[in-house]
Amino acid sequence: MVMQLDNFFMPSSVAVIGASRNSAKIGHVILKNIIDGGFRGRVFPINPEANEILGYRCYKSVNAVNEEVTLAVIAVPAEFVLRVVDECAKKKIKDVIIVTAGFGEVGNIKLENQLRDKLDKYGIRCVGTNCLGVFDAYHKFDTLFLPRYRLTRPKPGGISFVCQSGAIGSAILDIAAYSGYSFSKFISYGNATQLDESDLIEYLREDPNTKVICLYVEGIKNGEKFFNVLKEVTKHKPVVVLKGGLTDAGIKATVSHTGSLAGNKDVFYGVLNQTGAIRADSLEEMFHIAALFEKKVSFASNRIQIITNGGGYGIITTDAISLSKHLKMADLSSITISELRKNTPAHMNIGNPLDLLGDATTERYRMTLNSVLADKNVDGVLLIVLYQTPLITTEIVEVITEAHHNSKKPIIVVSTGGEFTELLSKSLMERGIPVFNFPTETISALDKVVAYELRHKGVKFVSQKDEKVNEKLVVKKKRVSKTKKNKK
Amino acid sequence: MVMQLDNFFMPSSVAVIGASRNSAKIGHVILKNIIDGGFRGRVFPINPEANEILGYRCYKSVNAVNEEVTLAVIAVPAEFVLRVVDECAKKKIKDVIIVTAGFGEVGNIKLENQLRDKLDKYGIRCVGTNCLGVFDAYHKFDTLFLPRYRLTRPKPGGISFVCQSGAIGSAILDIAAYSGYSFSKFISYGNATQLDESDLIEYLREDPNTKVICLYVEGIKNGEKFFNVLKEVTKHKPVVVLKGGLTDAGIKATVSHTGSLAGNKDVFYGVLNQTGAIRADSLEEMFHIAALFEKKVSFASNRIQIITNGGGYGIITTDAISLSKHLKMADLSSITISELRKNTPAHMNIGNPLDLLGDATTERYRMTLNSVLADKNVDGVLLIVLYQTPLITTEIVEVITEAHHNSKKPIIVVSTGGEFTELLSKSLMERGIPVFNFPTETISALDKVVAYELRHKGVKFVSQKDEKVNEKLVVKKKRVSKTKKNKK
Repeated sequence: MVMQLDNFFMPSSVAVIGASRNSAKIGHVILKNIIDGGFRGRVFPINPEANEILGYRCYKSVNAVNEEVTLAVIAVPAEFVLRVVDECAKKKIKDVIIVTAGFGEVGNIKLENQLRDKLDKYGIRCVGTNCLGVFDAYHKFDTLFLPRYRLTRPKPGGISFVCQSGAIGSAILDIAAYSGYSFSKFISYGNATQLDESDLIEYLREDPNTKVICLYVEGIKNGEKFFNVLKEVTKHKPVVVLKGGLTDAGIKATVSHTGSLAGNKDVFYGVLNQTGAIRADSLEEMFHIAALFEKKVSFASNRIQIITNGGGYGIITTDAISLSKHLKMADLSSITISELRKNTPAHMNIGNPLDLLGDATTERYRMTLNSVLADKNVDGVLLIVLYQTPLITTEIVEVITEAHHNSKKPIIVVSTGGEFTELLSKSLMERGIPVFNFPTETISALDKVVAYELRHKGVKFVSQKDEKVNEKLVVKKKRVSKTKKNKK
Repeated sequence: MVMQLDNFFMPSSVAVIGASRNSAKIGHVILKNIIDGGFRGRVFPINPEANEILGYRCYKSVNAVNEEVTLAVIAVPAEFVLRVVDECAKKKIKDVIIVTAGFGEVGNIKLENQLRDKLDKYGIRCVGTNCLGVFDAYHKFDTLFLPRYRLTRPKPGGISFVCQSGAIGSAILDIAAYSGYSFSKFISYGNATQLDESDLIEYLREDPNTKVICLYVEGIKNGEKFFNVLKEVTKHKPVVVLKGGLTDAGIKATVSHTGSLAGNKDVFYGVLNQTGAIRADSLEEMFHIAALFEKKVSFASNRIQIITNGGGYGIITTDAISLSKHLKMADLSSITISELRKNTPAHMNIGNPLDLLGDATTERYRMTLNSVLADKNVDGVLLIVLYQTPLITTEIVEVITEAHHNSKKPIIVVSTGGEFTELLSKSLMERGIPVFNFPTETISALDKVVAYELRHKGVKFVSQKDEKVNEKLVVKKKRVSKTKKNKK
């Protein structure tokens, strides 16, 4: 049965246990961010030594609060956590986020086991320990104890990120928000003392705002559970997984980080492959894959047409597609070719890549983009737009947006440049179009996205590489039969 | 003999042949950018139909100019180029940049051959055809026909970029300038009708401002010359090469782009390997490798120490180093370990990665960084600083800069984040410290940089991978001898 964890993200009331008047303390920043974030429920700071914090009445313990408290965020030192959980149980609080560190990750396994037993005994559900807690962009609930001028909070959108490492989570959230990506939920779960990665992923399957689930994980708590959850969830939503601790030295480092036993790399990769989860090989790749799913690119098959105003960019992208595992260069139909020939300058070469040349205009983009999208031989367009040349007017944003609305086929834009480029790229992203900086990283992410799409749609396809292998086999067969003949 | 090409970058006087009053024309933008760029020599617009352009007296032909003209930038239609070259010869102009397209790349090979013959006959040297020309950040000479609000011009620095594709060159120049990287010379040479990539690289060897040469190339004009030039130049400066046209489809696309025959990938890679040039596998990687060389990182050997305030980042970086070809995790000496133990909190684990934890302060960074840099077992520091946590004050910029000045060992910074992070990262870059966004891309570039450094210093070293292989061999040997004993 899937656990209903909504209360962690949209509680009707929250107690901050360990709230502090000292603005340098975590207990202060958590309270401040919950208030400043725009949370609409009731907030109760708990601190035996204060009467008021940030204008809110402060209570000596949760049991001094007369109203119902549905969630507690616990930020007291490790040695007080057990006692605080007792108090929460007495208050009938069912859910707690424990940000406190100092458990298994520093060798204090006994205390962590005592805590888990206590939580289980009371039937209290817990995110943490040793974590940042949660951020919900839709419900404006934010327990992250990092200041807003240092960590940009993202706008509401389709990415949810389950992250064992708080630092990775917050850094990615920050750069992603700054780059224009948008999120549903972020959960930093640290030591996974009780609720683990599987519980969280399973819950996100039901979150209507989550289009793609990202997971950074160091150690899996329960391998069988993880396998079953991934297998089920990937049928509904893509799950992109980055594993920390792949090598001996990396695995050694995970122990003192989240107390995880990282386990064997190949077994882990095997699980991802069997369950249909997507393996990311770096933070930057996880981020690119998620961005594509967030924009809901949907491929009927794997034939990609490149349109570009930079010849070299077209060549590099062609190389990347040809070297990819699952993508294929589209072959334009003869109807499209003659249409394009009629409407483009004579010195333009019609093919794939389709190089619109240095004197490309916005109008030339409009015409070719629409023509190519209508071609039955094309499943998606990799649209390279280099805004350095002055004949590309800013109206191109409208041209691409319109094509995006009128066609079911995905358009993925690659634009490299400075301030002017960034401005137009962000504008396109706000209109639902995925935009990237460089061709190679884009194709690398797209390769994994298309593989997932086709696997889950049950579409069979051949890649450029498969075709090469087939060609070679044919050549080999021919040679073999020749040799046989010669022998005769 | 190395060609002295200074006149292309710091001419005493320049004629813009095909200068136009129409601001939409290339001939207008070139003239405007030469003037606005801050060029200090004499400028002569040439246009038979105008008396004055942009406040400059206009001439009917170069031969109407009474003063000496040392360089001509030619931007007339292809059919007039031969005649213009005749006029240049009459005026005794020795160097021309021909931006005009419409030669070999559109199949007009005859015209391109005629042009080459003519240039050779007159002894005129030529950059182009089908190119953007040059940009020199030190001498403020700028023939790029792209507006400054669309293409940010970089500050003076150590990267020189020789680029067959104008679009790639300008896009990279734009994003690099925006990201804080700085350049000496940029040359877009297009069809390489006469001067080719080898001539340009050979010349840059002598440019005192150039610390690293980047090359994007589609086809090599003269393989033997290229081999010899690379072999000689890489002894003095690193040359980073990205090849467009690696796959069948990519090679096909190069023909209509710069009229190049791209040639065999494996032969090309062999040449890079034998000459000691560095192969980049993507634009983003070329850019990262160049940034490291531009900051003159110098490694005595390959042992890297990681310092981080994000445990997960430490783990991912450890994995990347362990999976790299040439890098190794450093083993801190016992002196450093006891020094660190004495001066850091008890719950901090001393090792590699060195995780300063979420409550890391600027002071903790100062102490550990200096301690680690002084360790004889460490050749360089990968310093991860995540600015999201409030205990890291902005003074950390001073701390890192001071350590950088006091130690000969390189410090490479990785910081992921939004506006606040970008601000501090740019500040560090201005002080000569390389900064990157993500760990994996950084290690990938660093791996190639360290390999070059050690090869050219003749340093022998073992990588993490080599050690593994050795360990396995030892285990195997032991087993073998055991088996032998059993047999006895």
